[in-house]
Amino acid sequence: MRLPRLLTPRTVAHAHCDLPCGVYDPAQARIEAESVKAICEKYQANADPEFRTRALIIKEQRSELVKHHLWVLWTDYFKPPHFEKYPQLHELFNKATKAAGGGEGGAKSSMDPQSGQQVLDYIAEISDIFWETKKG
Amino acid sequence: MRLPRLLTPRTVAHAHCDLPCGVYDPAQARIEAESVKAICEKYQANADPEFRTRALIIKEQRSELVKHHLWVLWTDYFKPPHFEKYPQLHELFNKATKAAGGGEGGAKSSMDPQSGQQVLDYIAEISDIFWETKKG
Amino acid sequence: MRLPRLLTPRTVAHAHCDLPCGVYDPAQARIEAESVKAICEKYQANADPEFRTRALIIKEQRSELVKHHLWVLWTDYFKPPHFEKYPQLHELFNKATKAAGGGEGGAKSSMDPQSGQQVLDYIAEISDIFWETKKG
Amino acid sequence: MRLPRLLTPRTVAHAHCDLPCGVYDPAQARIEAESVKAICEKYQANADPEFRTRALIIKEQRSELVKHHLWVLWTDYFKPPHFEKYPQLHELFNKATKAAGGGEGGAKSSMDPQSGQQVLDYIAEISDIFWETKKG
Amino acid sequence: MRLPRLLTPRTVAHAHCDLPCGVYDPAQARIEAESVKAICEKYQANADPEFRTRALIIKEQRSELVKHHLWVLWTDYFKPPHFEKYPQLHELFNKATKAAGGGEGGAKSSMDPQSGQQVLDYIAEISDIFWETKKG
Amino acid sequence: MRLPRLLTPRTVAHAHCDLPCGVYDPAQARIEAESVKAICEKYQANADPEFRTRALIIKEQRSELVKHHLWVLWTDYFKPPHFEKYPQLHELFNKATKAAGGGEGGAKSSMDPQSGQQVLDYIAEISDIFWETKKG
Repeated sequence: MRLPRLLTPRTVAHAHCDLPCGVYDPAQARIEAESVKAICEKYQANADPEFRTRALIIKEQRSELVKHHLWVLWTDYFKPPHFEKYPQLHELFNKATKAAGGGEGGAKSSMDPQSGQQVLDYIAEISDIFWETKKG
Repeated sequence: MRLPRLLTPRTVAHAHCDLPCGVYDPAQARIEAESVKAICEKYQANADPEFRTRALIIKEQRSELVKHHLWVLWTDYFKPPHFEKYPQLHELFNKATKAAGGGEGGAKSSMDPQSGQQVLDYIAEISDIFWETKKG
Repeated sequence: MRLPRLLTPRTVAHAHCDLPCGVYDPAQARIEAESVKAICEKYQANADPEFRTRALIIKEQRSELVKHHLWVLWTDYFKPPHFEKYPQLHELFNKATKAAGGGEGGAKSSMDPQSGQQVLDYIAEISDIFWETKKG
Repeated sequence: MRLPRLLTPRTVAHAHCDLPCGVYDPAQARIEAESVKAICEKYQANADPEFRTRALIIKEQRSELVKHHLWVLWTDYFKPPHFEKYPQLHELFNKATKAAGGGEGGAKSSMDPQSGQQVLDYIAEISDIFWETKKG
Repeated sequence: MRLPRLLTPRTVAHAHCDLPCGVYDPAQARIEAESVKAICEKYQANADPEFRTRALIIKEQRSELVKHHLWVLWTDYFKPPHFEKYPQLHELFNKATKAAGGGEGGAKSSMDPQSGQQVLDYIAEISDIFWETKKG
Repeated sequence: MRLPRLLTPRTVAHAHCDLPCGVYDPAQARIEAESVKAICEKYQANADPEFRTRALIIKEQRSELVKHHLWVLWTDYFKPPHFEKYPQLHELFNKATKAAGGGEGGAKSSMDPQSGQQVLDYIAEISDIFWETKKG
């Protein structure tokens, strides 16, 4: 079950830079992944070669941003006690970033919206754990 | 009053790239602005010169990202009918991006958390209008 | 009529960074837009698929730079008194950045040199106003 | 004496982009980490405030590059069978990227050359495993 | 003597990307160098430590852009016949990019406006040659 | 067999940033050029249009990095006495960066692996001179 984000207090800032400022939010990765999926859908619906090339150019950038935002969460936000409590976390992040990348079936190398959905599913899992640790 | 984001359907994607993919979300600007404010707070609480220099370096980047995300909304998401319906929109965006910038009192040139809050307030106003147009 | 740039004093610096240093120059946007138009022309004259893909990749970057340089002028250079004196300025910048973007007919989504020329025309208009304010 | 490059097998490519092209090399992370350490040393030897600020600016960038190159290896090069054979690999990469970051004692937040050396030590460990898998 | 730019035909585009689109213009390097010099002047006139740190951050970026724009001209615009006709060109570019860099007296490592002027002088020399080759 | 890294003197740093930190290494350019060549080979072996477009996108970035790393060596590492001792150095760097670029036969505009090999050959020449100056 997905952690009901609606319940998290809105005044809590979730840091993301490496000062660190302490503001992190999986929404950054999710928004880019939604874009990746939407680009795939538009690509499938449009056979114009110029449009398709642009879709590939832009999806490449958006997928890279997904990877970056996830890497930041994995290295900067999550700490040893989290990895102890959630032993699946390392592998989950590794799979999620691979799913956003250029390997077989990854969202960079596939124009199937399902590849974007796969990334979104991994991010939802990460997001659940993230918000649980915030409640802690 | 801030539009209750909690009511927006979660399956709605809010595009942000310039394919355009159609996924936009003011949360991108807001998260960076929260970071800007948090950096100011940490700066005020820490007199170490190395920390303070790093805070200035990173806040510069985060403020630039605030500006970028707002510019994208202004140019790519909002269309002529929106500007007609919300005649204050141009000026609101201009003020918001100036507030995030390096001019007098702007969040780049000030280490007062209030300058970050000012940007957040403008983004909340933009966000309200944004979500209203999404409901439309 | 385009403001005769030749008459502007050469020792006047036109700032562009957000210190702000005070050096702005619409030539930055214009040079990128000239590139956008030239890329379209070369694209139309060359059917080689590898060349065409590269043209799309590079035009995407150059168009983005056009938008960025224009946004900087709009937010960082122009001040409230300018917007009062030139009430068309907000809309002009909004149209110019849209014309450089990925929406319908925009210079990112079209390979017609005319789309690049449209951006150049908007920049010339902005440039006229810019140099008038410099004289003031 | 220069290590005879001619002796290294020229046909072995070590891929690093996400086509993927198949060329990876931990030297990319190592060179940036050597720079991080050297910057710390120069910082300690020079009390000039302008030099010190520049050192902080540049070290921030170089440390970020260390993190990026390591993330790429972790996500793009290493595959499930590697993680099975080297069960310490996830934690090693997590520690290495944390050591290059802005957390307590990390190479971004410290000007002690020892913090740069710590990153280099982790990279050497990763490098040993990397080259073992290449032999495999 | 500086080549009178005013005489160059305005319809001539001067390419700068690496398609190549054929549009080059030394003004790109010059505008950044003007910024570098202006930043030095503002730095000398303002003792506020936060302002000074920001000035160093931004000058670092602008100096890097000067180098980049010059490198592009040297590699992409100038061809073997130019280097034959202007045998001083290689050294001139090498000195100009060094003057914009972090070595002793370079514009990155000095806050003396004279270091920015030195870069501008080199760019004026390059610009003269550039426009002569355009006339050819 | 892995070349024994342990035999390379660990105290020799090869600087590359513009503090300058003093760490330079032609391996940075070489690794990117190996990637360029590998991308060409994969392109020739795969007729899938999506894969080919991605190959062009990524090769464009990698070739640009080759140019950047070479420019840094030319401007930041090599000093007047080097150019005196190796009078061919200016031209060598100019040819090498042109070979990595978008001009006729350059590695950006060609998908022939031979164009990548040409860049690698130039880098090997530069590397030989670089390491000779290090011994000096």
